[in-house]
Amino acid sequence: MNYGLLSRMLGIICILFAITMLFSLPWAHPSLGLRLDPDIPKAEQFERNGFFGLLGSSLVSACVGSLLWWLGRGSTGQLFRKEAMATVGLSWILATVLGALPYLLSQTQSAPGVRISIVDSLFESQSGFSTTGATILTDLEDPELVPHCILFWRSSTHFLGGLGIVVLLVAILGQGAGGKAMMRAEIAGPTKDSAHSRMQKTAIVFASIYVVLNLVLAIIYWGSGMSIFDALCHAFGTLATGGFSTYNDSLGHFQSPWIEYVTVGFMILAGTNFALLLLVSTGHFYRLIQDVEWQVYIGVMLTVTAAVIAFGMWSGNFADFGSALRFSLFQVVSIMTTTGYGTQDYDQWNNFGRGVLIVLMFVGGCAGSTGGGMKVIRHVLLAKILRLELELSYRPRVVRPLRIGGQTIDGNDLRKRILVYFGLVGAVFACSWLLLITVEPDSQWLQMVSAADDSNSLDHKLLDCASAVSATLHNIGPGLGVVGPTANYADFAPWSKLLFVFLMMLGRLEMFSILVLFVPAFWRRI
Amino acid sequence: MNYGLLSRMLGIICILFAITMLFSLPWAHPSLGLRLDPDIPKAEQFERNGFFGLLGSSLVSACVGSLLWWLGRGSTGQLFRKEAMATVGLSWILATVLGALPYLLSQTQSAPGVRISIVDSLFESQSGFSTTGATILTDLEDPELVPHCILFWRSSTHFLGGLGIVVLLVAILGQGAGGKAMMRAEIAGPTKDSAHSRMQKTAIVFASIYVVLNLVLAIIYWGSGMSIFDALCHAFGTLATGGFSTYNDSLGHFQSPWIEYVTVGFMILAGTNFALLLLVSTGHFYRLIQDVEWQVYIGVMLTVTAAVIAFGMWSGNFADFGSALRFSLFQVVSIMTTTGYGTQDYDQWNNFGRGVLIVLMFVGGCAGSTGGGMKVIRHVLLAKILRLELELSYRPRVVRPLRIGGQTIDGNDLRKRILVYFGLVGAVFACSWLLLITVEPDSQWLQMVSAADDSNSLDHKLLDCASAVSATLHNIGPGLGVVGPTANYADFAPWSKLLFVFLMMLGRLEMFSILVLFVPAFWRRI
Repeated sequence: MNYGLLSRMLGIICILFAITMLFSLPWAHPSLGLRLDPDIPKAEQFERNGFFGLLGSSLVSACVGSLLWWLGRGSTGQLFRKEAMATVGLSWILATVLGALPYLLSQTQSAPGVRISIVDSLFESQSGFSTTGATILTDLEDPELVPHCILFWRSSTHFLGGLGIVVLLVAILGQGAGGKAMMRAEIAGPTKDSAHSRMQKTAIVFASIYVVLNLVLAIIYWGSGMSIFDALCHAFGTLATGGFSTYNDSLGHFQSPWIEYVTVGFMILAGTNFALLLLVSTGHFYRLIQDVEWQVYIGVMLTVTAAVIAFGMWSGNFADFGSALRFSLFQVVSIMTTTGYGTQDYDQWNNFGRGVLIVLMFVGGCAGSTGGGMKVIRHVLLAKILRLELELSYRPRVVRPLRIGGQTIDGNDLRKRILVYFGLVGAVFACSWLLLITVEPDSQWLQMVSAADDSNSLDHKLLDCASAVSATLHNIGPGLGVVGPTANYADFAPWSKLLFVFLMMLGRLEMFSILVLFVPAFWRRI
Repeated sequence: MNYGLLSRMLGIICILFAITMLFSLPWAHPSLGLRLDPDIPKAEQFERNGFFGLLGSSLVSACVGSLLWWLGRGSTGQLFRKEAMATVGLSWILATVLGALPYLLSQTQSAPGVRISIVDSLFESQSGFSTTGATILTDLEDPELVPHCILFWRSSTHFLGGLGIVVLLVAILGQGAGGKAMMRAEIAGPTKDSAHSRMQKTAIVFASIYVVLNLVLAIIYWGSGMSIFDALCHAFGTLATGGFSTYNDSLGHFQSPWIEYVTVGFMILAGTNFALLLLVSTGHFYRLIQDVEWQVYIGVMLTVTAAVIAFGMWSGNFADFGSALRFSLFQVVSIMTTTGYGTQDYDQWNNFGRGVLIVLMFVGGCAGSTGGGMKVIRHVLLAKILRLELELSYRPRVVRPLRIGGQTIDGNDLRKRILVYFGLVGAVFACSWLLLITVEPDSQWLQMVSAADDSNSLDHKLLDCASAVSATLHNIGPGLGVVGPTANYADFAPWSKLLFVFLMMLGRLEMFSILVLFVPAFWRRI
């Protein structure tokens, strides 16, 4: 391990980070501070707290960055795979810590009752960067708890996380082979072949598509009656498949079918492979239609929506077909793309609807998109691999390549990687679930349940914990029960929240870049 | 596919089957018929129904067997892998159907209220053969519902299923290479190397250990105060890791710590690799202690038991340490070995206890034992494979063999097979769970819940269904909630029961031998 180089890379990232924090500062200005309601006398004071909190965080990031850069000065050599993985893993840990500072520092003067703890701010920060969208903020519309500019920072973390911190770095600076290795670790999905071979160009293209889509959606939102602030925040939340909103009722706040259908459209785009979007933007629309992963992605969404509508109408969850279509489609797309916006409390649906959403959590978006989860392509490949293995069980000598859409793709190594990923997810899921039900105290749970206005019992702990693990590991946000769409993660015990922080990071970076950090041999010099 | 040969093999199995049915006949005799209570005036009549039901079933089996044999007369050739797999898969389907006949035929004259339907009898038959031990019989102690000799037949299906129908065939007749292929498909676990290379000898050894253990345990039970009937039935249930009892309260009926601890010991033996037991019986006790799988198997049991005791004492589930040890150890061993006997309603335990039992369901016994589940060795190998893959992620060119207990075991193909098995189990579990919550009507569910004296709600359907799928797929029997240790599978809809029958068979034969039957290409002549 080349520690000097690693330190220098992390230093650059921290400085980049300090700069991005500055973009949230203007939103503390009274003319933009939409929450500066004259009924709230201290509103201006809150915004000032937010402003200085952000400024302080930016300074701290810059100092940490400079220190790391200074420590790594004079180091030579190239970023190899190990350094690239360490850079990606550690930069996400650093981002989580530095991104938590604005929440903490803006709270210094607020009343103790609404203060955000260190663990809470880490949770909120990681939830933003990993584009999960789970929150510990109990009241987003209380400017004392979350000043306006901090709310913007919160949505910005989605923007940064959806793009990828390292992707941003590579887009700006380029890092040769090291950049390629880092992007392999950060861009989601098993097949990393992109439209361009030079990584800086790929990163720029990826970033451009992402920024353009964000701007387009923000303009549409703005035209639909949102303020510029809300439009930007929700665009960030949608295209990063994050799910942070600026309102307690999430996107349901606007009560507008138009906004919801537009959001559905852009969530679908955000869950699509960006390489395909680039091809579409250059006129090759048929490439999208021909793509097997995208076919399955859309097919699953439509099938599940149809089934949810059918079962929902049958068991009386929806008033009429119009609202059934509106809410079902939105919720299915929101969960499958791992966005996690809510327009209806799906926890009140029938058991088929709840169950199928849980299964969808394990599916996720397409590879090379901002969507989390296990990615559609992995499931397609798993199905193909299992079918081939079934044949191998009675014809042990048959050799068949793995084919997708008529093309043969790299054989045994890819098969093993896909299978290993499923094994890892299963193992992490089972262990985390068992750990969560063990460490989360029952007394705390009873408090949560009664807060969620549920029956006063521990009966649902097993299922709710499973959904919470799944919702954080796959970067979705809301689960069932105490972490349902109308609830939040505020009342979990601190250690449970740290577990969630870990799971969100594991999910966003697809396990390996984080897990290797815990292998002692990884840190050896050679 | 050599259909003639296949038909002849199935014919032999049916005839073997017809013979085994005759062994249950004597238990209809009044002197052995312990249920011939003078208070029940029609008791003798019930036993007669059972007697003729069994006799009829035996005749039908003999006829079907002769027909199949006749159809396959004159066919030549050897059993290859395909024929072996088809023989195993189809013989289990045949066994399920023929084994259901005694339940059906003995019911011809009983009152309509206590009649067992066709689906129910298939369920009970498969639950017996697959050594699951889930039941649809609501009252085992009602001789009108289950005559005495039928109860013996029910436990005999455990005996046959634990041994393996094909193992029995190979032990008696031997089938050369075909026998080996068949036993590979029927004996559980990924590593099929046994103490002897000649398959007939292996089968005889396997069967002998099994029979001896059954006899020893039956004698111990008998000495502990059970009747010969109960002693035999419970020995069958224990050593097959089945779980059928002759009493509604399962083994808890006897209220005897001695019987429970003896059962714990024999359940542990039943879940141990029989090849190791053979070595132990020839004086090589250290081989057992040195075996990695066995170390993990015992280690997990002890650790989980200790944790369950600690959490149980802490949350007041147990009165004192003695009963905590007694009930925890029994329940943990019973679930992990996939036996499924109950001495306490673990569904009333704290959530840690319930959760950890669910996780244990996925672990199971050792390879080459009668225990079901995924087998300890697969988990050990998965952990090793994931660790190696973690290293490969940053050192892509490193080559390390898979080692267990200092021995290198076959590399890539074994890795792939282990990973594929986990993938298959995950896929089957997720699909079955979704199917079950979809096809099981909510109205039926509400009826079940109120029968189980639970809260009148659908809230637990998702978790209970997951536990039911797990309990049948891993051949355990009881799960949580409506399928908890005090409940049974009687009130599920018929199609759900058929799904369970399918899952039990899949689990017992470890997927492949059943799944290939649904592949059209499998049935082609070449």
